[in-house]
Amino acid sequence: MIVGAGFIGSVHAAAVRGVGATVRGVVGSTPSRSAALAEEWNVPARYPDLAAVLADDAVDVVHICTPNALHADQAVAAMRAGKHVICEKPIATSIADAERLAAVSAETGRTLAVPYVYRYHPLVREIRARRMSGDFGAWQLLHGSYLQDWMLDTGTTNWRVDAARGGPSRAFADIGSHWCDLVEWVAGVRFHEVTARLGVTIPARPAGSGDTFSPNSGTSSEPNGPNGPESGTNGAAPDGLRPVSTEDVAAVLLRTADGVLGSLTVSQVSAGRKNRLWFELDGADGSAVFDQENPESVWLGDAEGARLLVRDPGRGSAEQRRLATLPPGHTQGYGDCFRAFVDDAYSAMAGHQVEGLPTAADGVRSAHLVDAVLRADDSLAWTVVERAPARM
Amino acid sequence: MIVGAGFIGSVHAAAVRGVGATVRGVVGSTPSRSAALAEEWNVPARYPDLAAVLADDAVDVVHICTPNALHADQAVAAMRAGKHVICEKPIATSIADAERLAAVSAETGRTLAVPYVYRYHPLVREIRARRMSGDFGAWQLLHGSYLQDWMLDTGTTNWRVDAARGGPSRAFADIGSHWCDLVEWVAGVRFHEVTARLGVTIPARPAGSGDTFSPNSGTSSEPNGPNGPESGTNGAAPDGLRPVSTEDVAAVLLRTADGVLGSLTVSQVSAGRKNRLWFELDGADGSAVFDQENPESVWLGDAEGARLLVRDPGRGSAEQRRLATLPPGHTQGYGDCFRAFVDDAYSAMAGHQVEGLPTAADGVRSAHLVDAVLRADDSLAWTVVERAPARM
Amino acid sequence: MIVGAGFIGSVHAAAVRGVGATVRGVVGSTPSRSAALAEEWNVPARYPDLAAVLADDAVDVVHICTPNALHADQAVAAMRAGKHVICEKPIATSIADAERLAAVSAETGRTLAVPYVYRYHPLVREIRARRMSGDFGAWQLLHGSYLQDWMLDTGTTNWRVDAARGGPSRAFADIGSHWCDLVEWVAGVRFHEVTARLGVTIPARPAGSGDTFSPNSGTSSEPNGPNGPESGTNGAAPDGLRPVSTEDVAAVLLRTADGVLGSLTVSQVSAGRKNRLWFELDGADGSAVFDQENPESVWLGDAEGARLLVRDPGRGSAEQRRLATLPPGHTQGYGDCFRAFVDDAYSAMAGHQVEGLPTAADGVRSAHLVDAVLRADDSLAWTVVERAPARM
Amino acid sequence: MIVGAGFIGSVHAAAVRGVGATVRGVVGSTPSRSAALAEEWNVPARYPDLAAVLADDAVDVVHICTPNALHADQAVAAMRAGKHVICEKPIATSIADAERLAAVSAETGRTLAVPYVYRYHPLVREIRARRMSGDFGAWQLLHGSYLQDWMLDTGTTNWRVDAARGGPSRAFADIGSHWCDLVEWVAGVRFHEVTARLGVTIPARPAGSGDTFSPNSGTSSEPNGPNGPESGTNGAAPDGLRPVSTEDVAAVLLRTADGVLGSLTVSQVSAGRKNRLWFELDGADGSAVFDQENPESVWLGDAEGARLLVRDPGRGSAEQRRLATLPPGHTQGYGDCFRAFVDDAYSAMAGHQVEGLPTAADGVRSAHLVDAVLRADDSLAWTVVERAPARM
Repeated sequence: MIVGAGFIGSVHAAAVRGVGATVRGVVGSTPSRSAALAEEWNVPARYPDLAAVLADDAVDVVHICTPNALHADQAVAAMRAGKHVICEKPIATSIADAERLAAVSAETGRTLAVPYVYRYHPLVREIRARRMSGDFGAWQLLHGSYLQDWMLDTGTTNWRVDAARGGPSRAFADIGSHWCDLVEWVAGVRFHEVTARLGVTIPARPAGSGDTFSPNSGTSSEPNGPNGPESGTNGAAPDGLRPVSTEDVAAVLLRTADGVLGSLTVSQVSAGRKNRLWFELDGADGSAVFDQENPESVWLGDAEGARLLVRDPGRGSAEQRRLATLPPGHTQGYGDCFRAFVDDAYSAMAGHQVEGLPTAADGVRSAHLVDAVLRADDSLAWTVVERAPARM
Repeated sequence: MIVGAGFIGSVHAAAVRGVGATVRGVVGSTPSRSAALAEEWNVPARYPDLAAVLADDAVDVVHICTPNALHADQAVAAMRAGKHVICEKPIATSIADAERLAAVSAETGRTLAVPYVYRYHPLVREIRARRMSGDFGAWQLLHGSYLQDWMLDTGTTNWRVDAARGGPSRAFADIGSHWCDLVEWVAGVRFHEVTARLGVTIPARPAGSGDTFSPNSGTSSEPNGPNGPESGTNGAAPDGLRPVSTEDVAAVLLRTADGVLGSLTVSQVSAGRKNRLWFELDGADGSAVFDQENPESVWLGDAEGARLLVRDPGRGSAEQRRLATLPPGHTQGYGDCFRAFVDDAYSAMAGHQVEGLPTAADGVRSAHLVDAVLRADDSLAWTVVERAPARM
Repeated sequence: MIVGAGFIGSVHAAAVRGVGATVRGVVGSTPSRSAALAEEWNVPARYPDLAAVLADDAVDVVHICTPNALHADQAVAAMRAGKHVICEKPIATSIADAERLAAVSAETGRTLAVPYVYRYHPLVREIRARRMSGDFGAWQLLHGSYLQDWMLDTGTTNWRVDAARGGPSRAFADIGSHWCDLVEWVAGVRFHEVTARLGVTIPARPAGSGDTFSPNSGTSSEPNGPNGPESGTNGAAPDGLRPVSTEDVAAVLLRTADGVLGSLTVSQVSAGRKNRLWFELDGADGSAVFDQENPESVWLGDAEGARLLVRDPGRGSAEQRRLATLPPGHTQGYGDCFRAFVDDAYSAMAGHQVEGLPTAADGVRSAHLVDAVLRADDSLAWTVVERAPARM
Repeated sequence: MIVGAGFIGSVHAAAVRGVGATVRGVVGSTPSRSAALAEEWNVPARYPDLAAVLADDAVDVVHICTPNALHADQAVAAMRAGKHVICEKPIATSIADAERLAAVSAETGRTLAVPYVYRYHPLVREIRARRMSGDFGAWQLLHGSYLQDWMLDTGTTNWRVDAARGGPSRAFADIGSHWCDLVEWVAGVRFHEVTARLGVTIPARPAGSGDTFSPNSGTSSEPNGPNGPESGTNGAAPDGLRPVSTEDVAAVLLRTADGVLGSLTVSQVSAGRKNRLWFELDGADGSAVFDQENPESVWLGDAEGARLLVRDPGRGSAEQRRLATLPPGHTQGYGDCFRAFVDDAYSAMAGHQVEGLPTAADGVRSAHLVDAVLRADDSLAWTVVERAPARM
């Protein structure tokens, strides 16, 4: 059951089908939009709105793909109705809401899975397994970037531009949060303090089709990434430009309690960069580089140069082998990644133990990081992320 | 309905599900293997053998993924039983059998689709569209390679090693044929003559689990590519080594009737190469390079250097946009490619017009190329491929 | 005339010969070292020490390649003796000393050239020329890194490790300063404020051959980069380990007065990274990426992906053409770069106008940046670089 | 002493200076051209013609950089006059002339060095050293290409286009010969037989400035590669187009006496390719890939993917260390390569033993390969290169 019908909604739908489950329906921002989507996706037009979904006992899982500000209330309602939830990130636009979600998940025993899907690239798991085996030694430096260009066109807008709907952080919360989740999980660290500077490089954008995405009016969503067929590009906004309050770029420094430094550059306005999540983990005994746009190999630096390791179902760590479903050279992509996440989420919902599924706790962690980055940009000071950070 | 259960069988099954169709069953090399596969793939154990499949009116399409020597008879039987067929390449191990398939397809009106799936990479279509628009000018040279390493281990064997089951050509027929199909289709050429030299670099391999794949005993298949979970690697063959008669490497020169030169290098024993289908098309007004292992961008050479063009659902030719289902930077892989092929094949079977679906005629063309390469290697002379080549 | 005989001294010597000038002599840390070097480099053993050099009217230019703390006094002495100077960076280990050098240069009319040689890669000049033509539009973000691994071995030491000889900053002053010089010059910006965090990841290193490089004892120098034949690697230090006070890694955020954000990551302990000076300049109308380890092409990002532009003496901007002395594909390297710098420096000394020669003012600017980074790391606050930054 | 003043003449001159030797003069195609060149290169205008050079006892070595058809007679004259010779490749345009050169070299005891300079990339030597240590095992396949685009412009011409001056083969003799020399030397093989097809893709070109380069009128030469400042591009030929008889592209298959297959694709009309000499050597125990345009690292394929090995003066084989004069990451280029060749050539002339210097015997070998390729293209048959090939 999918709620929200932007680009990411269709990715969820494909993944659900890919794991052999059934998409029972889709809910858009209005009953008529729901009906239209049902036809477009070739699913029954069963549900005019979320309430109808929650009343249907045949629904096991609700996928929430709406604008960020709607996530928390919808996910709470779904869990209280006995449904498991896959909720798009950020799961909430405040720490309080994120913690509420975690509490409801614990209380109801319903799983809340969060699609930090880049954890499901097989070679990401390989790097993590090698880190856990001590291959890299003590971390010297953790750095990287997440760069896109879909917001570079000054005529492009999106519900994310509006802090009331997307939350007070845009570039960092939307994509920087992916990087932090991934690097903390792979490297086995928690960043204790941050400093950051956010920048709005395009100070005004078209007003956008406001009603469509109003929090009051429904549940439709928009592309996670760029250029989806339902992109909010709006070259000729009838109602003119509105000031932008959420950042296009973010420059962030990070530091663990043990003194390991990190650096992250985030941008949605870097021409030619499409979805470049890239990290380098430099350890005393070797380095590892992963590039989400070329996920079929990793670069493992050493004194002689580097090793290029390819994804391979017949080699490497158990988790890499589990997720590598095609022979090397037969590329796995973003869809395979997403499908593996949904597969594991469903397994967890069925009571099985799975490795590395991002859940409510990870969503809470992310909310703290977003909040700390905003505070750091505001105070221009190094800022502690969480007084007592969760232990891994 | 899938017949044959190696690596490529599972790829077919995933694609069938991915397009929203139903896998009604699977047939292995024996009734007990069929039952085991049905359980493994989570499909009903309906069919002990192919005859049972063909007798079932609920089956619309039969996917044939068995060893090469079985393709022709099985596909003919399926078409005569009124089924459409997706038949793995090579569709036959002789020109005569390939032509028989084409004739039966024409006679019965059943579609025979052949998974030359690399045609379904969006950027492959972009290059083709630009060629059709005249962007590259007169061809100067067409060259490339298809390199793998899965047969480099001297302990690896496979039914393909046995000419009786795999056909008289191995490396060229299995992967070189993909390259020829792709380059002829993209560049809009027919190679009129070839010269070639084949090499068996590993003269003996383990005897393999012969009975399993005997033409007499059933329909199971083996990996199309390397290292599949059911790979025929056989480090400790109980019955010793057998001489290998099919080539590990092939070096081929090609030439169109208009004098355009081509060169193709094929290998299954190039260490570190996993599935590197790579081509460069050099025209008077520009060049194009495609690498199947990095299918998300193409290199378009010009006097200043090159343009790197990325896959993008919002830009480029109609066919590129149609097949680009994810935003740029969210990688599409081999599975997406295969699924798009199955989708188009099913559309064609439903009577719709589709662009660039490889069918029986392409399988016949390939049989001619395989035959010409074998003759050239035998005669050590330049060899005409087809007296009167089919027009494109 | 070369003073100082480490790796970089030999690079200077090669460049001097490459432009057709004569190396009249070399001075090492002691008279006997001077004599040994003269023999090794095949130059006359004319000068026991710097004083002897300065007394020789036949010497036009003195190249100062000694440990950093010696630069200022030696350069002042040389200029006061009427010599032009090429002084290794950093030209001084304090702002005051750097400004003294600039003042003496102005007062004496002697040129002080500083080898920020990466300005002399032809394609660096091409990017700059395009920026000056307005090709990139308003800057959105300026980011990158300078990564090496030669200090990752805990047994490696070097005079730079000792703040008394190398100055209070190591990684940033040595290589981060190159990045800042290059990016400010290419992008046409001045960073107004910075915040930074420095890290000593290897807290103790072998004591090193202290006497050799004592400021009291002479003028010898050590490798600019890693693994030179005279590297200070010292696996078995007789006198044990000493604590390290200068940084191995530096994470820096930068911001222009106009609000353009920058980010720079610097490391001498990133395994597999040899001399990776890399920057990305993201503008409203396009991006530019330069990688010093692959300087023969640049990546120019745009909405469709990117253009790869190659160095070419027959195309592009006047400065690119001037410095591109070999046809494309015949790689120019670091030595060519250095030689072009020396050629321009000598031209300037001969009274000719040259474009982009780094001089004392650039050395002063760098001293301010180093100082600001140290202050920022100390205060943990955003820190203004210069109250009244020089205009470009 | 340089004879011939095209692009490659200036490369020779820079290399001579780079090794600390003196360019005593330069001879162009006419006395007035000689004088002009002497001024341009800043050398004394001593020699009106070659005879004057040969009469000067102060000249030790003559560098012959004239059009190919002039090489043999000039080199013979120089050796008979007691000079050592560095003669551009091909050393002659016929086997007979090449053998004559080898005989005169033997008879006179004068060294004839041939700038197959790609042997002087440090990592090329590393691959060779590893092959000699048995790292790669039995060769499975040797393949690659040498691609340029400088002849793609139909308005470009050059003395090489004219078989009377450049010899009967152009693309293969000029650049394909480099590939063959390099691969035979690195891989330790001799190709016993070849088949080939040559193509003239641009059948007519401007007539060119015939007199300048007439064999009768002097000794000047033209670019080895593309776009040199004295390129023969001639967009508006006053005397119209002339038919082209030498090939733009060559497709070649090769085979050793032991049955190892090779494939080589050569082109001067591949848009975007500047000087792409690329080879892959596939062995039973690993593969090696070298790309002349990115000579600072090599790709060593194995089952897990590959190792990227960087040039490093502190690691690897003795020859790699000897030629690696800069730390890794400080790129060495074509000029460094050429200088190392000249350095070794001069050492050999001084009676020292050097490793891997290409001499007259290599020039003779190349003449046989060129001849065999021409014969194969003519006969359309597999063709033996040499009845009794020289042993390595």
